Amino acid sequence: MTLPLTELQPDRYFDPDRRATALALYETVADLPLICPHGHVDPALFADPDARFPDPAELLVIPDHYVFRMLYSQGVPMEAMGIPRVDGGPVEEDPRRIWQVFADHHHLFQGTPTGMWLNQELVQIFGVPEKLSSASAQTIYDQLEDALTRPEFSPRALFERFNIEVLATTDPAQSTLEHHKALRDSDWQGRVIPTFRPDQVVNLDTPGWRDHIDDLSAASGIDITDYDSFIEALEKQRTLFKDLGATATDHAALVPRVESLSRQGAAQIFDRALRQGRSVDDAPAFTAHMLMEMARMSTEDGLVMQLHPGSLRNHNQAIFERHGPDMGADIPIATEFTRNLQPLLNRFGSERGFRLIVFMLDESTLSRELAPLAGHYPAMRLGPPWWFFDSWNGMMRFRELVSETCGLYNTAGFNDDTRAYPSIPIRHDLARRVDANWIAGLLVRQVIDEEDAAQMMRAAAYELAKDAYRLGSG
Amino acid sequence: MTLPLTELQPDRYFDPDRRATALALYETVADLPLICPHGHVDPALFADPDARFPDPAELLVIPDHYVFRMLYSQGVPMEAMGIPRVDGGPVEEDPRRIWQVFADHHHLFQGTPTGMWLNQELVQIFGVPEKLSSASAQTIYDQLEDALTRPEFSPRALFERFNIEVLATTDPAQSTLEHHKALRDSDWQGRVIPTFRPDQVVNLDTPGWRDHIDDLSAASGIDITDYDSFIEALEKQRTLFKDLGATATDHAALVPRVESLSRQGAAQIFDRALRQGRSVDDAPAFTAHMLMEMARMSTEDGLVMQLHPGSLRNHNQAIFERHGPDMGADIPIATEFTRNLQPLLNRFGSERGFRLIVFMLDESTLSRELAPLAGHYPAMRLGPPWWFFDSWNGMMRFRELVSETCGLYNTAGFNDDTRAYPSIPIRHDLARRVDANWIAGLLVRQVIDEEDAAQMMRAAAYELAKDAYRLGSG
Amino acid sequence: MTLPLTELQPDRYFDPDRRATALALYETVADLPLICPHGHVDPALFADPDARFPDPAELLVIPDHYVFRMLYSQGVPMEAMGIPRVDGGPVEEDPRRIWQVFADHHHLFQGTPTGMWLNQELVQIFGVPEKLSSASAQTIYDQLEDALTRPEFSPRALFERFNIEVLATTDPAQSTLEHHKALRDSDWQGRVIPTFRPDQVVNLDTPGWRDHIDDLSAASGIDITDYDSFIEALEKQRTLFKDLGATATDHAALVPRVESLSRQGAAQIFDRALRQGRSVDDAPAFTAHMLMEMARMSTEDGLVMQLHPGSLRNHNQAIFERHGPDMGADIPIATEFTRNLQPLLNRFGSERGFRLIVFMLDESTLSRELAPLAGHYPAMRLGPPWWFFDSWNGMMRFRELVSETCGLYNTAGFNDDTRAYPSIPIRHDLARRVDANWIAGLLVRQVIDEEDAAQMMRAAAYELAKDAYRLGSG
Repeated sequence: MTLPLTELQPDRYFDPDRRATALALYETVADLPLICPHGHVDPALFADPDARFPDPAELLVIPDHYVFRMLYSQGVPMEAMGIPRVDGGPVEEDPRRIWQVFADHHHLFQGTPTGMWLNQELVQIFGVPEKLSSASAQTIYDQLEDALTRPEFSPRALFERFNIEVLATTDPAQSTLEHHKALRDSDWQGRVIPTFRPDQVVNLDTPGWRDHIDDLSAASGIDITDYDSFIEALEKQRTLFKDLGATATDHAALVPRVESLSRQGAAQIFDRALRQGRSVDDAPAFTAHMLMEMARMSTEDGLVMQLHPGSLRNHNQAIFERHGPDMGADIPIATEFTRNLQPLLNRFGSERGFRLIVFMLDESTLSRELAPLAGHYPAMRLGPPWWFFDSWNGMMRFRELVSETCGLYNTAGFNDDTRAYPSIPIRHDLARRVDANWIAGLLVRQVIDEEDAAQMMRAAAYELAKDAYRLGSG
Repeated sequence: MTLPLTELQPDRYFDPDRRATALALYETVADLPLICPHGHVDPALFADPDARFPDPAELLVIPDHYVFRMLYSQGVPMEAMGIPRVDGGPVEEDPRRIWQVFADHHHLFQGTPTGMWLNQELVQIFGVPEKLSSASAQTIYDQLEDALTRPEFSPRALFERFNIEVLATTDPAQSTLEHHKALRDSDWQGRVIPTFRPDQVVNLDTPGWRDHIDDLSAASGIDITDYDSFIEALEKQRTLFKDLGATATDHAALVPRVESLSRQGAAQIFDRALRQGRSVDDAPAFTAHMLMEMARMSTEDGLVMQLHPGSLRNHNQAIFERHGPDMGADIPIATEFTRNLQPLLNRFGSERGFRLIVFMLDESTLSRELAPLAGHYPAMRLGPPWWFFDSWNGMMRFRELVSETCGLYNTAGFNDDTRAYPSIPIRHDLARRVDANWIAGLLVRQVIDEEDAAQMMRAAAYELAKDAYRLGSG
Repeated sequence: MTLPLTELQPDRYFDPDRRATALALYETVADLPLICPHGHVDPALFADPDARFPDPAELLVIPDHYVFRMLYSQGVPMEAMGIPRVDGGPVEEDPRRIWQVFADHHHLFQGTPTGMWLNQELVQIFGVPEKLSSASAQTIYDQLEDALTRPEFSPRALFERFNIEVLATTDPAQSTLEHHKALRDSDWQGRVIPTFRPDQVVNLDTPGWRDHIDDLSAASGIDITDYDSFIEALEKQRTLFKDLGATATDHAALVPRVESLSRQGAAQIFDRALRQGRSVDDAPAFTAHMLMEMARMSTEDGLVMQLHPGSLRNHNQAIFERHGPDMGADIPIATEFTRNLQPLLNRFGSERGFRLIVFMLDESTLSRELAPLAGHYPAMRLGPPWWFFDSWNGMMRFRELVSETCGLYNTAGFNDDTRAYPSIPIRHDLARRVDANWIAGLLVRQVIDEEDAAQMMRAAAYELAKDAYRLGSG
């Protein structure tokens, strides 16, 4: 029989038909350092040695759209979970009440990755001896609140406890990277590096685009007055990011279209938008063009390019107007890669200096398009299962759908992609367990032998991420 | 070793790696009453206390396109299976011959849900001690024929034996619901309720549309002379359905496009069609508009709205002309939900009074679109795997593809969706076994604990259907 | 524990939860002859009794784009693997060096079908006692080189050792089939038959199309001066193919659109292309029309029609220009069957004389479109998992995605589809093991009984391919 969730089985999450084999494989990598090449942790947490996490609701509910969208889907108002309103209107402010609402709906997460993460986090990180429920909510709140005041739960202390080798944040292209500069200048040894994300300046229809351009001028010290100075400012900022340790850029797109305009054509669009101070009809063509420009820059400066397409943002207009973006209402659409990426891959896909990591929210593309592309073009690697697919079944399906075509070694290891800092070791642990489960499945069927299995396990758990993101040297 | 199919193993259908756990879970729900919120059983079966089923061919072959399309696909003419012709031309009339043809091709159903249902039905409902084959066909025919004459095989007797708590039929919007009225006025206690299905009147290109409008006028007592009286007649009929116990409506659509026209725009299309007595070019826009109108009415009268998109009807033109619709030649197409449902979900998706249950025939949308939508919008629930996917693998894939994103509690339990009345308990049994298998898989991997598993099992087998369809009170 | 890969477990590749059952099923078919109805082996290998395979690199690396594209994807230049250049430029010519590069990257194939085939081929066909690695590369080369000189490794000797009952090659419509004629006239008893593939003459935009038309004139003895003589030449060549044993035709298409033009419309397009000596704008419409014409001819001459759609050829322009086609850079696209095939299936799908076998590279169509179509139309069978999907998971997914809807008996058995002749028995062995694994999964869950399982196993391993391709008589 299984143990209660508060007593974590050493062989949890493994399929019974390969349990011992998977556990043995997992144990060979369980203590390897964590490579975190893509995520959304706030660098301010590390820049200030005295930073502490606020209360349990602020830590685990309010910032996590994976959590609150599930309660919203069952009729809990966003306000009851303390989600701030754009207009500053009233929302629940008592973290104990927010925590109680969360605990009252905890069963919604049965069988979900959020449920697995949360349970393991409470047990392993915070040592909570009880299962979360309506009845135990306030007692657990007390325990968490107490823990968060202690120095061993400071972000820096946890960084060491979590055995993080490197943690990449995600930062807008127009950032001055103050926190990363402070970190560089501090005596703390943790490796926290920025990632260059230019979406807000290359997508002309971003809300506040014109202001972001001004910020980019200010950050780069280059007055952006036309397309050429825009390109120059971006290149200069990439240098700044790289100087502060960045090894990658990140790009979102509704459709992964990458296609060059003529320099003159691009300049006309950009200059028109700049004059008008707002987006123009041909903004999508400009975005597609800028992705190609970013690829070109990557071939020159060696920053690894990440592409995250296929999410229709802010599907629920009322929620967007009341609470803003990232409210759990971003919904995937069908995505096409074969033709959309062809111009990019034809131009740079076989260049030694270029690396492209592609993510997806449309699993039908995995075996049909992405694995065949990654199994051909030298520059391309498949990013790990993203967002909804960062889950037990999502990761198993990913391995089974792509590996027979592109192998393990054209994938890019694991990303935790999270803003929920204390969940980081838990997410890596789950990913390592899923990979152990997958590799053990190959081994018990004699598709591979033990030597292969050991090599694959280490690659999946550690080496591929480090290699794909060029994190070899600190 | 496995037993012969005539001796049903208590732990049949469970994966070996979790068999005992799944059986224990299944046994906790095996005797719960059946909730049948969506199906196509003829209400006349219950309205007449003396109703009996005709012969085995009429019971199990002729009305079941799941069955005869498989034989047709292997070259058996429709006529040989007694499928009536539109022109009244000759078809096989001897039920024993039809039964023999069916038995001769019984191997075609190996490994299919139809094969599983049929075997279990013969063994459990009719007590047949032999496996169906060419050799046993006539003996089994004798046994079935004999059973069907006995009072314990009357529809009402089976209703009680099957432990059905509630059974919803599907009825055109223009129905006078005579059988349901007769049931209401009878002293029989079985709860059989109608479902409001307006496809034939809101889809202007339905064959015979103009006649259906006349029927709607007659049934509602409102003379439909324009768009406004059409809306009024629909609202009045919804009230009649509700008075006779309906809790839901049902809507088919090739594409799940839901989008309002202006009242004037809608009226112009409808009035033009009414004048011409036939469909018009902008019929699809009118259908999309009427879906929004139906949603609006649901927010007002509380009827749960069901949407079944994605089936291209009557793909085989010759079969349609010779035998009519529902001949096993409806073929799915790729379906888009994220953008098509956006207008509907933005308008009503967060309204407390509204509930939308969405079905699909395109599994690629499950993890990409439907689970993310259902995991956000309070009004939306995912209907169970429909049609081809009401099967062991179909149901397992459904759980594994959606649950990690929208959880169990944004799904709507099980529907048998059948016109094959004696198969109802078998279909529910299979669904409960698949859910037990899925939940046991989570339990043996310690994703959940035993308390969670018990709660999920009861929800999946009974509570979710009752709640999703608002069937709480009789 | 598992054995080393050089000691093949008798129960390899089976899931542990059904291992003994699967092995028992597999053993009932392990020694059945191989039916090879679709492949790309060069008929010259058999026409010449003294034919021998060249060195190991020429046998296993250079002609196999499954192999070299994987090394290319990790940065190995095509030239280093000896892949010829279109311009005749220098490439590696030392087969020992090519073999070493291959061995140095052998880990890339861990968990892939190519890895499984190659390992089993070395062990079973060539008796190599060591695992391929950088260290063992040259020793293994010696062993292979030695074996290839021996008479028991001649193509004809292997044909008998492999227990091949029939092997179909793939031949352009304009072929004179010299090798097949030589085989017919020889005293060797192996059954090697051609397959009629007219892509190069019906797709007007094929490079060198005009020359292929001239070849077709020459081969058929009919001077192609217009559309009518083109049709006549095709019909005459089909007769030649049939006389030499062909039972099937094969057709590639980017999109599976099949739709008749008027005779006059088709003639106008063809005649215009003929006059201009090159393709015309409406080439796709002509291709769609010719697929319908081919179907018409199949209803008349009984040749089974195979359709392979959905591959975007030569995605990497630079590789195409430097090395030509079939370089591992053909990438699938999303494919639509329901509407595209409707005209064909409406016209011929219920005709007794017609058989259509459809393949796919888009797994999302399996449960949505292909299984429902094959489960209705008498003429249609589903081809086995093609290309990337000819793999353990690909085949298991195929069975699980289609069988519940169209059953086993609307599928067409296994194709090895290979130009890698020595891999043929290995590929069939893997396919038979996967089918045994699938059928055992049904049996241990009591979905079927042992009688069913035995019947299904034999059908999947042998009978279905023979029947689907009308190979019953030699």
